[in-house]
Amino acid sequence: MPIMQIKEVHITPVAVPDPPLLNAAGLHAPYALRLIVEIVSDDGISGWGEIPGSEATRAALETAAEHLAGMDPWALNAIEATLEALAKPDARGATPWDQRTWVHVRSAIEVACYDLMGKSVGRPVVDLLGGAVRDRVPFAAYLFYKYGGAGGEFGFGRDESAVGWQAARQAEALDPAGIVAQARAMVDHYGFQSIKLKGGAFEAQQEVDAILALREAFGPDVPLRLDPNAIWRLDTAIAAGKQLDGVLEYYEDPVRGQDNMATVARALSIPLATNMCTTSFDDLPGSVAHQSEAIILSDHHFWGGFRASLELARFCAVFGRGLSMHSNSHLGISLAAMAHLAAAVPNLTYDCDTHYPWQDGHDLLVEPLTFEAGSVEVPSAPGLGIEVDRDKLARLHAQYLACGLTERNDEIEMQKLQPGWTFQATRW
Amino acid sequence: MPIMQIKEVHITPVAVPDPPLLNAAGLHAPYALRLIVEIVSDDGISGWGEIPGSEATRAALETAAEHLAGMDPWALNAIEATLEALAKPDARGATPWDQRTWVHVRSAIEVACYDLMGKSVGRPVVDLLGGAVRDRVPFAAYLFYKYGGAGGEFGFGRDESAVGWQAARQAEALDPAGIVAQARAMVDHYGFQSIKLKGGAFEAQQEVDAILALREAFGPDVPLRLDPNAIWRLDTAIAAGKQLDGVLEYYEDPVRGQDNMATVARALSIPLATNMCTTSFDDLPGSVAHQSEAIILSDHHFWGGFRASLELARFCAVFGRGLSMHSNSHLGISLAAMAHLAAAVPNLTYDCDTHYPWQDGHDLLVEPLTFEAGSVEVPSAPGLGIEVDRDKLARLHAQYLACGLTERNDEIEMQKLQPGWTFQATRW
Repeated sequence: MPIMQIKEVHITPVAVPDPPLLNAAGLHAPYALRLIVEIVSDDGISGWGEIPGSEATRAALETAAEHLAGMDPWALNAIEATLEALAKPDARGATPWDQRTWVHVRSAIEVACYDLMGKSVGRPVVDLLGGAVRDRVPFAAYLFYKYGGAGGEFGFGRDESAVGWQAARQAEALDPAGIVAQARAMVDHYGFQSIKLKGGAFEAQQEVDAILALREAFGPDVPLRLDPNAIWRLDTAIAAGKQLDGVLEYYEDPVRGQDNMATVARALSIPLATNMCTTSFDDLPGSVAHQSEAIILSDHHFWGGFRASLELARFCAVFGRGLSMHSNSHLGISLAAMAHLAAAVPNLTYDCDTHYPWQDGHDLLVEPLTFEAGSVEVPSAPGLGIEVDRDKLARLHAQYLACGLTERNDEIEMQKLQPGWTFQATRW
Repeated sequence: MPIMQIKEVHITPVAVPDPPLLNAAGLHAPYALRLIVEIVSDDGISGWGEIPGSEATRAALETAAEHLAGMDPWALNAIEATLEALAKPDARGATPWDQRTWVHVRSAIEVACYDLMGKSVGRPVVDLLGGAVRDRVPFAAYLFYKYGGAGGEFGFGRDESAVGWQAARQAEALDPAGIVAQARAMVDHYGFQSIKLKGGAFEAQQEVDAILALREAFGPDVPLRLDPNAIWRLDTAIAAGKQLDGVLEYYEDPVRGQDNMATVARALSIPLATNMCTTSFDDLPGSVAHQSEAIILSDHHFWGGFRASLELARFCAVFGRGLSMHSNSHLGISLAAMAHLAAAVPNLTYDCDTHYPWQDGHDLLVEPLTFEAGSVEVPSAPGLGIEVDRDKLARLHAQYLACGLTERNDEIEMQKLQPGWTFQATRW
């Protein structure tokens, strides 16, 4: 019998207010969906995980949960093998999980197990990942073009000092001036030291102009990044990149596919970064063959957990890739997990992405994590070092049931405002 | 202040009787040298590590030891950064550590820390590496051409049931018949299910004939491996490999260098394996570029510890390399460490190498590990799950002081029997 056993697994879909943010795929819905996983051990310890939400992933997690009872939460390889067997089609004709479902399920469960493991031995998760190389993890301001409004109205009370940021979170930002104003409010409140703009929403010159306006406003000491979400043509991406030479810290996914990324990389002196052309271990041989990017944005939700992320970090060190971190709309469980992981990776030297400011005031933690000079202090309490507020969790779940969304679909949200709008893999 | 601190580090060089085994570099000396590292925590727990011995490595470990006191044994990244700083030349003119010293020091200390960590939380080391995917780790019989004799005479008493193997350990084995007799005695006693012959000692046809004789003696169900230690010419290696097509499980380092290995690989259908052309993370880009081998023999002593070995395992999974495990003459601390690591790596699917039978009766454990049907049961007690016998350790250390050896030099040992013999990078 294992020393410690998984007794219960609870999966709770939640809906979190999200402003109408624009990207190449369309528009964010009024609520972002997340799945909260709680694994309870036989000695009553709870471990928590959080991943992007969808009905398919929830169903897969429920199936996984049935097989985890009785397993040792430290037996990560055995748990992974169990999940892998569930992910594959079987003789009973169960639907196989797609790659995204597989990594999400694996990540949610692994993170919850690490939280449990850390709590059971009185160590923060970062200690189980090799120990901290930094006490604070720096994040970047993550700017979006957006329509006016702040998404579903629902909150747990806000920091009164955040008035400026809350106004910007409501405000429209559809041109360079709007982006600069948004940046100013976010940087003033959170203290971020670098800035990323999610592009792919408008024709390229407008987005180049927004970057140039940010440079003008913040000066050369604040690193800038632009992410057109792989939607530009090769010639557009190269022409835009030439305008941004010496301005961007990195140029994220200007075009789609490793071969196209490599073509752009050869034409420019700005380093290219990706979380779209090299997104799984299966993509690494192609990354080496094409030399498609200089920097990979890791993400434990999409690479399959902490251990996989550490292995990706070694790949980056060995094959000369820089390492940064991607995010989606998320809550504090994910933010804590990101902080523990980033603290344990020596070569994760870029400020990490986070959407956390966009969910400001809606987190499910008893004490939401805070930013100081753009950085989050790595929690030092055992496990992830956070406490989930079960009342807030219940309210966010009720919101999920009420909002009617079951998966993210930015195209449909955009069609509500622009009938007939369709996603195009390449635009501009 | 850390929860747990390193209080003392003890480094003990030991000399272990080793038979006159032949290889491409010459002859094993009568004693194999190992370094035993004991790290003691402030709460009185001891963690143990073991690596190949040399005066240079001992000196480097002593330097490292001075910097470890007060550090948290769980802070592996911080410890590694400390060691890395020591490894580099500095302003004070200290001698930089070479690559081998660096990985050995790092491995010894990391393994000792894992032993400490496991003991401190009541978990076997394998649980800290992701958990066991197998309860028993299979090893291969490791055959050597040898002169008569069993090396320095010194032992802690032997298993009476080992009479047959002890005779073979003494016996000369200089031709195919001698190799088959050695294999029979080793397999009878240890139950190994696969067999490796260290070659590079005689001209190629003799070694090919030894493999064919082993196949004749053991039949097609016992996998065979030949390791000429990279000493053959390209044409010799290809001609020998063609004779062994369908006979060898893998063909280990027939030639020197990734480019030559790739040439041989293209000419043959047998998979090539290496622990000589791809031996560090710096070699991985070349391995991908050349496609120099199908299988990498990992070794936590040479790759820098457990975490590095897990990262190598991921490389192998991603880039289509098989994974096996290399060994040197070693004692039970290393064997236990190898077993914990091998148990935690899903894609380590080949039987591992071990020299342990050649050190039979000389181990420093209170209860030496035993083989059943060629496999070692992964210790389930906390940490490495072994107990070091301090009297045996003291006797092996006294033997080190008495034997006069300070580093391994197989060429000098060979010259004692064959004056004027010199190592040649390519022979035959």
